[in-house]
Amino acid sequence: MSSKAMANLKESLMKLPGVGEKTAARLAYHIVEMKAEDVENLAYAIKNIKAETHSCAICFNTIDIGRDICEICASDKRDGQTICVVKDSKDLDAIERAGFYTGKYHVTGGLISPMAGVTQEDIKLKELVQRVYNNDIHEVIIALEPNVEGTATAHFIAKLLKPFGVKVTKLAQGMAVGADFSGTDSVTIARAIENRVPI
Amino acid sequence: MSSKAMANLKESLMKLPGVGEKTAARLAYHIVEMKAEDVENLAYAIKNIKAETHSCAICFNTIDIGRDICEICASDKRDGQTICVVKDSKDLDAIERAGFYTGKYHVTGGLISPMAGVTQEDIKLKELVQRVYNNDIHEVIIALEPNVEGTATAHFIAKLLKPFGVKVTKLAQGMAVGADFSGTDSVTIARAIENRVPI
Repeated sequence: MSSKAMANLKESLMKLPGVGEKTAARLAYHIVEMKAEDVENLAYAIKNIKAETHSCAICFNTIDIGRDICEICASDKRDGQTICVVKDSKDLDAIERAGFYTGKYHVTGGLISPMAGVTQEDIKLKELVQRVYNNDIHEVIIALEPNVEGTATAHFIAKLLKPFGVKVTKLAQGMAVGADFSGTDSVTIARAIENRVPI
Repeated sequence: MSSKAMANLKESLMKLPGVGEKTAARLAYHIVEMKAEDVENLAYAIKNIKAETHSCAICFNTIDIGRDICEICASDKRDGQTICVVKDSKDLDAIERAGFYTGKYHVTGGLISPMAGVTQEDIKLKELVQRVYNNDIHEVIIALEPNVEGTATAHFIAKLLKPFGVKVTKLAQGMAVGADFSGTDSVTIARAIENRVPI
């Protein structure tokens, strides 16, 4: 590149997931040619996203500042006796798009991973136990990805909830082994929820 | 998404090339979790890229504000009697990375495309003719992609330059048919320059 500003933009874009050197260069050359208004909007949306969002006080879903709890936690049309445990808001969105699930959620914010130095203290498990303790919860569906960390975290949660006598289930293996939510179609996700089995 | 700010960021990201709804959601959820400093840098780099760059006064390569001409045009180590015509600065970078070409460039800023409403007046062809007229140019290498628009533009340029008696060549078909520069390795690009043939 013959421009330091362009090289700098490329470096910043390479912090995004799945964006290598070639893609970053392609994006940078596209951005410099975009309409000024679109560039402004993109920069503004990125700059402010952290300040404009926080976590739902109940389920830790990502919501706008100005609300304490998310629409799902606030809704009395959703089954408050069922909690679906997901890793993050992106997975929550994927399950919502499947349009089959009518209960509430709990976003852990991560998976237990000794390799990555993530312990049970680092994710929202105490808060899940509190919710089960304080409310009349009949079932906890664990919808974590079926990889090593997801499976380990699922079993840890099942053990934590054992004393409460709540039914703990996991998603059926309708999902392709090794697949994540973003690569799975809504019908398959709905089937996996429908066929959930006890842990 | 349970956040309007996140949905707005997703919309803005979808203006980028190759970024559909799923990728935009993935990027947005990544950005909201990124280090604040990295988010600031990315937003800043995007916001200012148009103000910080402009075109080289000679070849129209993308350069930083504060310089009039690019390093290649300014260099007396480059062969000033050969001009390589490229569509944009991204293609120029790809040829520079191949490390074979030692002449100068001319960035047209587009290809003639009646379908897209782009005429010869919309790209930097008058400026190319001026350069050939005003300087002792021996060869013009046309390095436009070998698709319909690229081929049409190449022939239009060859016709424009005919009165000047300058040698006009195009890249050899060493490049895979239909491939663009970003998907072609440097060795193949170097070979295509080496084997250039008269139009």
